Amino acid sequence: MTNLPLRHSAEVAAAKAAGRPIVALESTIITHGMPYPQNLEVARQVEDDLRAAGVTPATIAVMDGTLHIGLEAHQLEALAQAKGVAKLSRADIAACMATGGTGATTVSATMIAAHLAGISVFATGGIGGVHRGAESSFDVSADLLELAQTPVTVVAAGAKAILDVAKTLEVLETQGVPVITVGQDSFPAFWSAESVFKSPLRMDDPVGIAAAHQMRVDLGLPGGQLVANPIPHTDEIPATELAPIIATAQADAEKHGIKGKAVTPYLLQRIYELTQGRSLTANIALVRNNARLAGAIAQALIANARIAGK
Amino acid sequence: MTNLPLRHSAEVAAAKAAGRPIVALESTIITHGMPYPQNLEVARQVEDDLRAAGVTPATIAVMDGTLHIGLEAHQLEALAQAKGVAKLSRADIAACMATGGTGATTVSATMIAAHLAGISVFATGGIGGVHRGAESSFDVSADLLELAQTPVTVVAAGAKAILDVAKTLEVLETQGVPVITVGQDSFPAFWSAESVFKSPLRMDDPVGIAAAHQMRVDLGLPGGQLVANPIPHTDEIPATELAPIIATAQADAEKHGIKGKAVTPYLLQRIYELTQGRSLTANIALVRNNARLAGAIAQALIANARIAGK
Amino acid sequence: MTNLPLRHSAEVAAAKAAGRPIVALESTIITHGMPYPQNLEVARQVEDDLRAAGVTPATIAVMDGTLHIGLEAHQLEALAQAKGVAKLSRADIAACMATGGTGATTVSATMIAAHLAGISVFATGGIGGVHRGAESSFDVSADLLELAQTPVTVVAAGAKAILDVAKTLEVLETQGVPVITVGQDSFPAFWSAESVFKSPLRMDDPVGIAAAHQMRVDLGLPGGQLVANPIPHTDEIPATELAPIIATAQADAEKHGIKGKAVTPYLLQRIYELTQGRSLTANIALVRNNARLAGAIAQALIANARIAGK
Ligand SMILES: [Mn+2]
Ligand SMILES: [Mn+2]
Ligand SMILES: [Mn+2]
Repeated sequence: MTNLPLRHSAEVAAAKAAGRPIVALESTIITHGMPYPQNLEVARQVEDDLRAAGVTPATIAVMDGTLHIGLEAHQLEALAQAKGVAKLSRADIAACMATGGTGATTVSATMIAAHLAGISVFATGGIGGVHRGAESSFDVSADLLELAQTPVTVVAAGAKAILDVAKTLEVLETQGVPVITVGQDSFPAFWSAESVFKSPLRMDDPVGIAAAHQMRVDLGLPGGQLVANPIPHTDEIPATELAPIIATAQADAEKHGIKGKAVTPYLLQRIYELTQGRSLTANIALVRNNARLAGAIAQALIANARIAGK
Repeated sequence: MTNLPLRHSAEVAAAKAAGRPIVALESTIITHGMPYPQNLEVARQVEDDLRAAGVTPATIAVMDGTLHIGLEAHQLEALAQAKGVAKLSRADIAACMATGGTGATTVSATMIAAHLAGISVFATGGIGGVHRGAESSFDVSADLLELAQTPVTVVAAGAKAILDVAKTLEVLETQGVPVITVGQDSFPAFWSAESVFKSPLRMDDPVGIAAAHQMRVDLGLPGGQLVANPIPHTDEIPATELAPIIATAQADAEKHGIKGKAVTPYLLQRIYELTQGRSLTANIALVRNNARLAGAIAQALIANARIAGK
Repeated sequence: MTNLPLRHSAEVAAAKAAGRPIVALESTIITHGMPYPQNLEVARQVEDDLRAAGVTPATIAVMDGTLHIGLEAHQLEALAQAKGVAKLSRADIAACMATGGTGATTVSATMIAAHLAGISVFATGGIGGVHRGAESSFDVSADLLELAQTPVTVVAAGAKAILDVAKTLEVLETQGVPVITVGQDSFPAFWSAESVFKSPLRMDDPVGIAAAHQMRVDLGLPGGQLVANPIPHTDEIPATELAPIIATAQADAEKHGIKGKAVTPYLLQRIYELTQGRSLTANIALVRNNARLAGAIAQALIANARIAGK
C-alpha cells in the first residue's frame, strides 16, 4: 500500500500523530448538495464547528487522482467551484484514482477512505437507502452494504424521507447493521425529527455509542454503526407538514416522466421550492447537528480507550 | 481482543483444552420458544443428549454484558426464568454487551459467538429465512447472510414452513451457502420431513459433511454450511396435514390485522393451538435430532483432522 | 492450506514461476455450453489464442476432487466428453472436492479458484445476473456477489440478454462492483454489441483497466471488476433483430410451462434454433474476443507492476 496516492491535510496529520479526535466528512454535499458559494460556507462552518469543539475535521475527496483525508483551505475552495465532478462510491473510487480523476465521495466511499486513514467516526446529512419502487427497480444504495462491511460509525439524520424507510430498515437488519437512534424511540426522518418507524436501538449517550463501536471491533465484526441523530425540533419541518409536500413532489415527478437517477435530484429541488427553501435550511442545521454528535463520539472513543488502558 | 467480556463454562473450557468435540446451542429457544419450566427442561435435555454422546454443549447467551460460551447450571436456570430478554443478532449483540445487557442469541449471533470461541458446529431448530411477502416487505432474516460469512456448520430442520422456502433457497444460492440435506433429496420443512423443494446438495454421512466444512476452510471461503436434517418421520406432522393448518393461521393473522414482527409469534401460537400442541412436541424432537447430528459432525471434524495429521 | 487438493498444469506452473501473464478460463462453457466435439475445439481455440498472444491459459475445473488450475491436453479432452458433470459455484465447490467429485466451474467458482492460485484476470462469455421475474422469484446469480468479494477482473460480453439487465446493473451498483465497458458508452448485451443501458464506467485501454484493478487492491477493497467487452460488430446479432427472437423464445417457454432452472437452457436452445445457429457462432466469437482483451489486461498488470517497481 506504499504506492497508494493518499494524502492527509496538515491538520489531520498533526491530529493523528497526537492521537486527537478526528471526524470524517463527505464531499458530495459540497459538489452536489448546494450551489457555490453557499456550499463552501456550509463546509467551512461544519469544519469550524468541529474545531471549536476540539475535534479535527477530515473532509474526504479525490482530486487529480489523489485521495485526500482532509482538505487544505484552497483545496476546499477549488472543490466547491469545480464543475462536473464525479460522485464516487465503492464501485468507482478506484477507477477515478487510477485515471487521475476528481470526485466527491458519497457515504460509501467516505467510509472506505476514513477506514483506510484510521478514522472511526464520520458525519453526514442522511444515508442513501432503498428507493421507493425498489421492489421492481432493485434500486438500493451501496451505502447500506458499506455500513455492513466497513467499521466506521456514521452519524446521520436518518435516511431522506423520499426513500422507502421501512425497506431501508429491513435491509439494514438483514445486513446486520446496528441502527442506534439518539434521544428518542422513533427513527428520524431527515427534515423531520420523528417518523412512524421504531428505531431498532436507542442510546442517548456518546460514551455508550463509542463503547458499542469498540465492542464491535473487539468482537471481530467488520461493519460499522448507523447513528441516527434527529434534527433539532427548532430546525425541523414536522412530518405532518412535509408528507403532503413529498407527495406533491412525487406526483410532479410522475407527471413529468422523471425516471431513474433523475428522480432524487428532481424531488429534492421540488421540495426546496415547495418549502420556500426551508428544506435546505433544515439540511444545513442537521448536518451541523450531526457533526457535533460525531465529534462527541470521536472524543468518547479516545477517552474510553484511555480508561481501558489501550 | 484481550478486553472482550467472553467467558467459557468450566465444561467448555475443559473440552477446548483437551481438544474434545463441542457443539454450540442458541438461547432464543429458551427465552422465546417455550414457557418456563418446559424451556429449562428441554434445554437440559438437549445438553444431556450431547453429553451422553461424548460431546460438550456450549449454550450461548449474553448475560449482564458478558458473552457466555456455555452456561453453568444456575445460569441456564436464571436465563430460563428471565423476563424481557432481548433477541440478539449481528446488528445488536455489540450494543447489548457494551451496555451490560442480557440477551438470547439467534442463529446469527450464535454463529458469531461460536466462531469467536473456535467452535465449528452449531445445532438449532430451524433457521430464519425469507418471509412470505418479502417481495414487498423486504423482510429477510440476517441468519441467511450470517451463513454466507461465518464459518460455522449449522444443523437445522430446514426453515420454518411459515416462511417462503423457495425464496429462502434462492437467497442461500445467491449468497453462496452450501445447503446439504441429510438422508433424503428434498429440503425438509421443519415440522414435516419432506417439502416440494429439491435440496441443492445431499450428504448422508457426518464424516463427509465434516470434510466439506474443512474443505471450505482450506479454500479460504469465509462462510458456513447449512445442514438440513429432516425431523424423524415418527415425530413429524406430515406436510399434507400441516399445509391447511398454516393456511388457516395465516388467514387468521390477516383477519386480525397482525403485521410486521408480530406475525411470526402469532402464527407459531396459532399453529400450536390448531395442532393441539403437536407443533411443540415436534419442535422439541427435531431440536434433539439436530443436536445428535451436530455432535456426530463435531466428532467427525476432530477425527478427520487427526487422520489428516493436523 | 497445505492439504488443499489443488494442482497447476505444467504450463501454468511454469508461467507462475517465471512471472508471465496468465488468464483463467471457466469450464461450464465446455461441459454445458456446446456439444462434443465442438466444445473441445472451441476450448482449444481460446487457449491457443491466448498462447499466440504470449499469455498462458488456465482452464479451471474440479476433476476427481482435485481443483485444477490449467488442464493438460488429455484432461481437457476428458472433461469435454464427460457426462453429468456438476456446475459448481461458491455454494458447492467445497462439497464436490470433499467427496472426490468432478465439476465444471461457473464464473463464481472460477473466480474463487483463480484468486486462490494468484491469477487476477479471467475471461468468460457472459456473467450470470438477475433473472427476469426476480422481483417475485428472487433468482439472482451468485456471480454478482462473487464479483463483490473476490479480487479478480472478469472480462465478459455483458450479461446474457435473456436476463433482466437493468436489475443486474442495479445489484452490481449496490454491491459496489466496478462495471467498466470498453470502447463504447452502453453496456453490451452479449450477442449484441449495444444495449439501451448506459455503462457506469468506460475505459478503452487495458493499461488503465489494469491500473484500476491494482488500485482496488491497494485500497484494500476485496472485490473484482466486471470488464464489459462488446462483441465485435461483425460478429453480433444486432439488438433490434434479436429482441423479437428473445420475446418469441420467452413466449414459447411460458406456453410450454417451462419453470425455474429449466428456463435458461430452454431459452438458449430456442434462440439457437430461431437464429439458425447464429447465436452460437456469436457466442464463440465473443469468448475469443474476451480472451484477447483479458490477455492484454494480464500483460498490462505485469507491465504496470514493473514500472511501479513492485
Ligand atoms: Mn441506486
Ligand atoms: Mn426481519
Ligand atoms: Mn439462480
